[in-house]
Amino acid sequence: MDRIQLQTSRRRELLDITSFVAEAVAASPVAEGVCHIFVPHTTAAVFINEGADPAVGEDILEALAAMLPKIPFKHMEGNADAHVLASLVGSSVTVPVSEGTLKLGTWQAIFFLELDGPRRREVWLSSLRA
Amino acid sequence: MDRIQLQTSRRRELLDITSFVAEAVAASPVAEGVCHIFVPHTTAAVFINEGADPAVGEDILEALAAMLPKIPFKHMEGNADAHVLASLVGSSVTVPVSEGTLKLGTWQAIFFLELDGPRRREVWLSSLRA
Amino acid sequence: MDRIQLQTSRRRELLDITSFVAEAVAASPVAEGVCHIFVPHTTAAVFINEGADPAVGEDILEALAAMLPKIPFKHMEGNADAHVLASLVGSSVTVPVSEGTLKLGTWQAIFFLELDGPRRREVWLSSLRA
Repeated sequence: MDRIQLQTSRRRELLDITSFVAEAVAASPVAEGVCHIFVPHTTAAVFINEGADPAVGEDILEALAAMLPKIPFKHMEGNADAHVLASLVGSSVTVPVSEGTLKLGTWQAIFFLELDGPRRREVWLSSLRA
Repeated sequence: MDRIQLQTSRRRELLDITSFVAEAVAASPVAEGVCHIFVPHTTAAVFINEGADPAVGEDILEALAAMLPKIPFKHMEGNADAHVLASLVGSSVTVPVSEGTLKLGTWQAIFFLELDGPRRREVWLSSLRA
Repeated sequence: MDRIQLQTSRRRELLDITSFVAEAVAASPVAEGVCHIFVPHTTAAVFINEGADPAVGEDILEALAAMLPKIPFKHMEGNADAHVLASLVGSSVTVPVSEGTLKLGTWQAIFFLELDGPRRREVWLSSLRA
């Protein structure tokens, strides 16, 4: 299992981690299979979407925040909104690996989604065999 | 890695791809493990839900559209809504494989979710070993 | 493939299934890889989030319910809301396995999300090799 170390700088933020994942896949002995990208936190998440136009990521962050319902939360740490969005977006993604390289679609990038930063964060990577 | 080719016909649309996936699993040498179903697009997604009553899929499409917040988007291609929903629903699903066959629950089907069609699309399939 | 049997007791409910999954992983011959946790139902889901403070799970349940749009549904069984939320949250999660043990983050727990109970339910577990 490989680990990526991240430092986020805002409360809500997207970090494009595609190049870190691609490097780990290239260094892995698994040539055919799937790369598993896992976030071991409860107020952060990971998803795949467009990396070319930074406006897409900004729109996604804005939309997620706007979808949060205006209800009173019971969790007393003031970050229940982050737990809700992390549960919806999800703690892992999986991407095909073929001929030893990560196989994303043309416009796809892998984004670490910080929802309660700034914090030090990790992402855990595993390579699974076809 | 197997590839399914799809042609969608509306802006938002569900295509039941279960039979394509089941065929690929039956043809794969992996008898025990998991099938990985991956969408290499940023304005489409994949999920699992009921396939028996077509009204369920229609309700899911309507509900997703209604959950979109009415905010101004920065992405200038007019499809930021599709990027948002694709990020929420997700780019892959994974389904158990046992005795060489796809193991879904009784009412489950695998749906390709088009969010910015009509377009030509692909789905990538990988079989992972238990 | 291992199966966990569950009995839910309310319409919407969270069950922490982490210990069941950890036991299955410990008993599996796979020492390095990923555990696949699959819900074979269309009105239930699975996700990972904080298990320490029960208020977090209650907030997530309340927020999911409040995010449902107030639209007329076509599906006549009265549980279209459950199908919508199950599609959004997802039917599976995947967690790293290393040295024969389930590797979750410090605050993470695996939750079965009942959306149309009370019902008898199953969760299917598969261990995939790195």
